Amino acid sequence: MPHTPLGPGPEFDIIRGIWNRIGGRASPAGDDCAFFKVGREQLAISSDLSVEGTHFQVGWMSREETGWRAATAGLSDLAAVAATPLGMTVSVGTSDEQPDDHVAELMKGAADAAEAAGAMIWGGDIVRSERLVLDVTVVGRMEKDPVTRGGAEVGDGLFVTGRLGGPAAALGAWEDRREPDAAARDRFVKPVARIAEAQWLRDAGARAMIDVSDGLLADTGHLAAASNVACVLDIDAIPVHPAAAGPEEAMTSGEEYELLLALPNGVAAAGEFSERFGLSLTRVGRVEAGSGVRVERNGTPVDGFATFRHF
Amino acid sequence: MPHTPLGPGPEFDIIRGIWNRIGGRASPAGDDCAFFKVGREQLAISSDLSVEGTHFQVGWMSREETGWRAATAGLSDLAAVAATPLGMTVSVGTSDEQPDDHVAELMKGAADAAEAAGAMIWGGDIVRSERLVLDVTVVGRMEKDPVTRGGAEVGDGLFVTGRLGGPAAALGAWEDRREPDAAARDRFVKPVARIAEAQWLRDAGARAMIDVSDGLLADTGHLAAASNVACVLDIDAIPVHPAAAGPEEAMTSGEEYELLLALPNGVAAAGEFSERFGLSLTRVGRVEAGSGVRVERNGTPVDGFATFRHF
Repeated sequence: MPHTPLGPGPEFDIIRGIWNRIGGRASPAGDDCAFFKVGREQLAISSDLSVEGTHFQVGWMSREETGWRAATAGLSDLAAVAATPLGMTVSVGTSDEQPDDHVAELMKGAADAAEAAGAMIWGGDIVRSERLVLDVTVVGRMEKDPVTRGGAEVGDGLFVTGRLGGPAAALGAWEDRREPDAAARDRFVKPVARIAEAQWLRDAGARAMIDVSDGLLADTGHLAAASNVACVLDIDAIPVHPAAAGPEEAMTSGEEYELLLALPNGVAAAGEFSERFGLSLTRVGRVEAGSGVRVERNGTPVDGFATFRHF
Repeated sequence: MPHTPLGPGPEFDIIRGIWNRIGGRASPAGDDCAFFKVGREQLAISSDLSVEGTHFQVGWMSREETGWRAATAGLSDLAAVAATPLGMTVSVGTSDEQPDDHVAELMKGAADAAEAAGAMIWGGDIVRSERLVLDVTVVGRMEKDPVTRGGAEVGDGLFVTGRLGGPAAALGAWEDRREPDAAARDRFVKPVARIAEAQWLRDAGARAMIDVSDGLLADTGHLAAASNVACVLDIDAIPVHPAAAGPEEAMTSGEEYELLLALPNGVAAAGEFSERFGLSLTRVGRVEAGSGVRVERNGTPVDGFATFRHF
């Protein structure tokens, strides 16, 4: 299995450099999960590392919320390939001298998220660290072939679940030392991995899927690169969270854990999906021949979008 | 499956607190790996988090050695239950602005350790962190039932692979700002997970096994607690690394990644083992009725051993 073509940007340059170095000893890189077979079973695995100061500040959330959020980041990677979550390990680095209650609260939050997704907590590690560190590794089972980032075809519609921009609005408030809007805060501290939704969308014919973790614009770029297509986003179609400033904020808001997908005949599915899950499924654009992402308003390109950078 | 009885000490108090909190959503705690079934396959999983400043200092090792060591910590947990390694994820937090080469070197070291154990690198995560952080999650397949910490029986001999004390000797030198003895340094920076050895020992009748990560004395305590037995260590039988100060240092030296095991008829196996693997297998004590660990010299208790504490 070859690598999924990687998008542009420094994060992918790093991954390319690493994979060149370690060669055939590494699984193909570039999707939300890696896949491996055991006997007749196909499994998916993914790890998500969160570090205080980089991904969050301790004062923003309770420890339970911090644990929930870290677990959901992992579970969302399983959702992105339509895997069924089995379980996770949760490693915690903490500066507490007496970490008992604090780590138990983190793990309670992670266990709540795991339970909501039908997964177990298998274990982990607890060590001392100046900054709070959480690394969650999730394992899921593929009941059917995975939906990867690489299957979008010219003519497909691009759809996104939910409404975007809540996490960015919450983050902006915290950075301005304001209390965030309650609904926006909730989107940041208690995101939901779209597990059942992803499997339904796979069965409805989704050809490519990715979870919105870097931001809609950046993740559309990943999907375009992996599928060797161009993606066009209609800025006026973006479903904007009520607390977000507008479609620009909604398109660059990361850690949404909503799903972006390519559907050949999506409009009929959208109504059924919304009715079933109580969650919107919105057509936000289309797949064309070419490469990269173009943002349009009334058919005219809109310039000036910066993508979220990990580094 | 009930929890394996946990030993004394603050680390286990934390785990007890957590598991009480999250209840039935967690796998039984207390062994080197957690186990889960997928179809007819039984798999083992474990995570090991290493943090700069807690587990190592950046100046002590090259990045390749740091990656090797972190991967080996995980692989050794698979060895401890006699699992066959399949693969691992490696999450890296780094402060580098341009982390390309540095992360590639860490991953090269991890990939070398994985390859030596027959495992793949499946992926991971790369994020920014003030302190270098590595979290390795390993997954292995159980070809037969696992050898846990909990199977030792009264009358068994206690055996350990290799010679102990090298890592402690290296650590002591670095802490005194001396250059460590080359062989001791090698034991610290390039430990070996005893994968094939563990499977051989399982087939030779090992009833309980643990890898020496906290130190022989502490890990003997874990094995005794899990097996509901007392363990007696003969201080003069401890195989001491040439660079170590003596059996006291050898018994408290952590991160050895050698195996400690209970064997009913071990002396015959020891010779065959050494011949096959070019590694010593030494009888260091015996299993008795009771609880806890006793250190003896010529049948007389020796007092004054402190165990390694994670916190």
